[in-house]
Amino acid sequence: MKGAGLKVRNIALIVSYDGTAYRGFQTQPGGGTIQDELERAIRALTGKDVRVEGSGRTDAGVHALGQVVSFRTDTPIPIEKWALALNGRLPNDIIVRSAHEMPDDFHARYSAIRKTYRYSITTGKYPEIFTARYRCHHYRPLDEDAMRDALKFFIGEHDFTAFSSGGTPRKSNVRTIYEARLEREGNDLHLYLTGSGFLYNMVRIIAGTLIEIGEGKK
Amino acid sequence: MKGAGLKVRNIALIVSYDGTAYRGFQTQPGGGTIQDELERAIRALTGKDVRVEGSGRTDAGVHALGQVVSFRTDTPIPIEKWALALNGRLPNDIIVRSAHEMPDDFHARYSAIRKTYRYSITTGKYPEIFTARYRCHHYRPLDEDAMRDALKFFIGEHDFTAFSSGGTPRKSNVRTIYEARLEREGNDLHLYLTGSGFLYNMVRIIAGTLIEIGEGKK
Repeated sequence: MKGAGLKVRNIALIVSYDGTAYRGFQTQPGGGTIQDELERAIRALTGKDVRVEGSGRTDAGVHALGQVVSFRTDTPIPIEKWALALNGRLPNDIIVRSAHEMPDDFHARYSAIRKTYRYSITTGKYPEIFTARYRCHHYRPLDEDAMRDALKFFIGEHDFTAFSSGGTPRKSNVRTIYEARLEREGNDLHLYLTGSGFLYNMVRIIAGTLIEIGEGKK
Repeated sequence: MKGAGLKVRNIALIVSYDGTAYRGFQTQPGGGTIQDELERAIRALTGKDVRVEGSGRTDAGVHALGQVVSFRTDTPIPIEKWALALNGRLPNDIIVRSAHEMPDDFHARYSAIRKTYRYSITTGKYPEIFTARYRCHHYRPLDEDAMRDALKFFIGEHDFTAFSSGGTPRKSNVRTIYEARLEREGNDLHLYLTGSGFLYNMVRIIAGTLIEIGEGKK
């Protein structure tokens, strides 16, 4: 009676990571990605091979506060035990914050309705030592009003081909940005972009364009 | 006329660093210390060997927000150029925040009157990804009132032999703690200790003792 009584579960994890040491989210030959580490930890815990799906494939060096991943398993470990058990099997720069039992049709990527990216800039003469890994540093003054004005033009449904840099070819480069805002916090400027999805390098290129606008170059 | 017109200057730098990748502040055979990096950068800038003195010899893995270092040089580089010039020659995890022309008798270590150390603990179920390098994580609940009560006993002049772990033998293990306080900031608890000086591992051992008190073990 193979598999009798072992129900296949669909589990979602909310994951934070410091991407500095990784080659991005998506698995690659040779490993060294967030996905490889998560699959390795789940295999260590359950004894079975698993494929995890992430809501977004963050690039090398990109960090996450709340990346959603999902996977299927028939392991009967109670849902409230997963986070702690996986954290004990993950490196310190990847943290599972919570685990959730999901309906069978949930998929971290296809079920995602909107995603928010943050791009953070430390302004002023020097970077701050305890946030330097998570910010770019910009020495010259930035015209924040001009940057906020420009942000309006990104909101809505647009073809973002000019704001991407190749990568996997996709059917369409049309994406919708629902919200775009720039917030100051001390010496830091945080750019928040919420959209249906983002093309390869799109957030970084929008941020770079905004910085040029802030410098009066565009 | 060797050296004619070249005045020997006494320069102090305020330095921040992320100590994760280093073997502590003080130079060691084989390098890999903050002092080695600073001396290398100053040599690269001035073309001359130099010996820097730090106000405190932080241990491996200890970070600094405002470590003071001093050194002598006859290089006529204007004082306002030093920080930027050195930062261009230092790794990203060491930042010179400012440079100051000091009187001839100033010495980063011997002139230090008080030093403040911070020991930070993230409480709650999981560490926070963007501060995990700079905090220890403590899962179990802590009785902060008991910890604050205990802090009072550290204030004043005491023999701290019981709160050190060997290291270089010194004439006296008597130190004065002027201020000791515990501050909560969101999920973080920050222990601040201000004193005349600290023995090897003393801050870490006091913090560990306080955590045991917070757990009701002492």
